[in-house]
Amino acid sequence: MKLDVCYTPDLIHQFEVENKTVVVIDILRATSCMVAGLGSGIQSITPVATIEECEALGKQGYIMAGERGGEKVEQFHIGNSPFDYMKPELKGKKVATTTTNGTHAIELSKNAKEVVIGSFLNLNALVSHMMKSENDVLLFCAGWKGRYNLEDTLFAGAVCNALKQNAELESDSALCAFFLYQSMATDLAYYINRSNHAARLSKFNVKEDIEYCARLNEFNVVPKLIGSELTV
Amino acid sequence: MKLDVCYTPDLIHQFEVENKTVVVIDILRATSCMVAGLGSGIQSITPVATIEECEALGKQGYIMAGERGGEKVEQFHIGNSPFDYMKPELKGKKVATTTTNGTHAIELSKNAKEVVIGSFLNLNALVSHMMKSENDVLLFCAGWKGRYNLEDTLFAGAVCNALKQNAELESDSALCAFFLYQSMATDLAYYINRSNHAARLSKFNVKEDIEYCARLNEFNVVPKLIGSELTV
Repeated sequence: MKLDVCYTPDLIHQFEVENKTVVVIDILRATSCMVAGLGSGIQSITPVATIEECEALGKQGYIMAGERGGEKVEQFHIGNSPFDYMKPELKGKKVATTTTNGTHAIELSKNAKEVVIGSFLNLNALVSHMMKSENDVLLFCAGWKGRYNLEDTLFAGAVCNALKQNAELESDSALCAFFLYQSMATDLAYYINRSNHAARLSKFNVKEDIEYCARLNEFNVVPKLIGSELTV
Repeated sequence: MKLDVCYTPDLIHQFEVENKTVVVIDILRATSCMVAGLGSGIQSITPVATIEECEALGKQGYIMAGERGGEKVEQFHIGNSPFDYMKPELKGKKVATTTTNGTHAIELSKNAKEVVIGSFLNLNALVSHMMKSENDVLLFCAGWKGRYNLEDTLFAGAVCNALKQNAELESDSALCAFFLYQSMATDLAYYINRSNHAARLSKFNVKEDIEYCARLNEFNVVPKLIGSELTV
């Protein structure tokens, strides 16, 4: 198996996605929310690009979820906290979500053989899924407005580390994500808290979100994109 | 002083260069050659985009230097090895050079307040220069055909490490370059030899070049772009 890492959507043109499993990664917080929600019994999550598309699905009975600039969209039912997604009343519901970076990365992955969702919360489940598959894998970091970020790269490195006996790391992006993870693995939450994104989010009082998003293997699910819906 | 890192030319649109010192970094091997050559008495180095431009300057008496795909351009005087650039007979000469990545990054930096050249060979001289200046700094990794690479990022991290008491690391790119350097600082040559670029170059028998490019502070010079020429 070949394993590569794309650090931001602004570099995705350098990679072929057609015959690969693409793992979309937006640790703070879109893909952590997707894993927490689908792992807690939400029926499906439909990522959409705009607030208006989300509202259109809201009229069809979907729970509307999402943020802009880190804050909940005012008229939506829930924001972009994994705790929102784990509320018992959401079990069995369909959710439509729009976020700054994660939904954009999913949109850019649509030509892949398979699109799945990665976060620290489902690391082992994801790694098992990849080992069973014969597809080459691209770990696709959503970044922040096209820019590189620490926490997504760190998770990509965690996957490279878990698969180092089974996969060939294709490029320096993969190799450096792996080295970065190895140097930070002893205290993921500490390093994620030093990231730019954590600093940006700190004004929204989401310290607990960040700590939760650094937790390992809370859910044994691999959300997968089927049509326009993520399900497990 | 603010310090940021751009990992590849494909991400340069995310950064403002206008009021900054831009440090162009192409460790294997363009900027290492520039430092070795200008540190050994070459009068000036003119980076140009094409083989034809290089040949036009050759007709005016310039030494023609450069590579395509890692190999010396056949009709040129010298290739892209730092040892070529240190030959005694080049002292006092003007050199025109074209390389795959380094000259492209210099071209993209031309709107900066100042463009200087960085490599492990002149790390301390570069850091001293930056500490004397009041400019914010962008460390601009030339990468490989637009892609991220290990060795340029590692050097950017070495600069971040040297300036950590004096500069604010502006983004996760800078922070992660710093962490990567800290985890690899004990054996730079070993890690650079694990890079994709080292693997690509290995077929050209340039092991000594790679080891030389990982040496620290061989030259106390900071090549600077004045018009179209690099001088010290």
